[in-house]
Amino acid sequence: MGNDTQSCDLCINPGGAILWQSALCRVVRVDDPHYPGFCRVIWNDHVREMSDLAANHQLLLMRVVFAVESVVRQLFNPDKINLASFGNMVPHVHWHVIPRWQDDRHFPEPVWGSVRREGKAPRPVVGDEALAQAVSVALANIE
Amino acid sequence: MGNDTQSCDLCINPGGAILWQSALCRVVRVDDPHYPGFCRVIWNDHVREMSDLAANHQLLLMRVVFAVESVVRQLFNPDKINLASFGNMVPHVHWHVIPRWQDDRHFPEPVWGSVRREGKAPRPVVGDEALAQAVSVALANIE
Repeated sequence: MGNDTQSCDLCINPGGAILWQSALCRVVRVDDPHYPGFCRVIWNDHVREMSDLAANHQLLLMRVVFAVESVVRQLFNPDKINLASFGNMVPHVHWHVIPRWQDDRHFPEPVWGSVRREGKAPRPVVGDEALAQAVSVALANIE
Repeated sequence: MGNDTQSCDLCINPGGAILWQSALCRVVRVDDPHYPGFCRVIWNDHVREMSDLAANHQLLLMRVVFAVESVVRQLFNPDKINLASFGNMVPHVHWHVIPRWQDDRHFPEPVWGSVRREGKAPRPVVGDEALAQAVSVALANIE
């Protein structure tokens, strides 16, 4: 739980395939075959908690999170969206945007819970480029 | 996963001890002895996803979430804050604001993960009235 940017995975690495980025934050795709469309929205600077961000930055980051949520809903048609910001392992503000289906591996538990079933029902297939394009359109008005 | 407000627990019940409420949302305390200071911020209307809310309501709700986060940090001095909005079981927008300690039952996993230890280290004791008072002060400028 260090505050050392030298050892912080999200300071050193993008954290996934970059779909969109600005001077302040970035959107990456998480490579999880059970949860296609799983994205993370990562604040670029090493900040520990949302309440450590200035109010305008908090709201800007959430606008990005909700825009990504909208894109994931449109492209992956999940039964539910899960949003979470933990940072217990990497205390650098990042948001999980996770599409959930009633027949996925963990439903109705969070994806960090126990596996309940195989969850291999077919899901929408959307490539990185198409997802990046949709995210960029949704974020066209975000600086 | 119904949309039926007649059977929705958060339409029927407050969801915990009410610390603060407005016409739009409420803050309740979750009764969990392992996580004192665990609060939920609940949208009053039966809305499924954050992206189903109008933009001004999204941002208002997050201002409340972050104000509660600040209060929980001040009063309970956790090592980390966890924020999450799932709604897999109750698809009615509500946010979990959870103080975490490195020696708590589940750390570094989310509180929905497996139990790792007893986690009975002493935690700050703050009564409902004192917590409600601090939340009300933090939300004084929220309509």
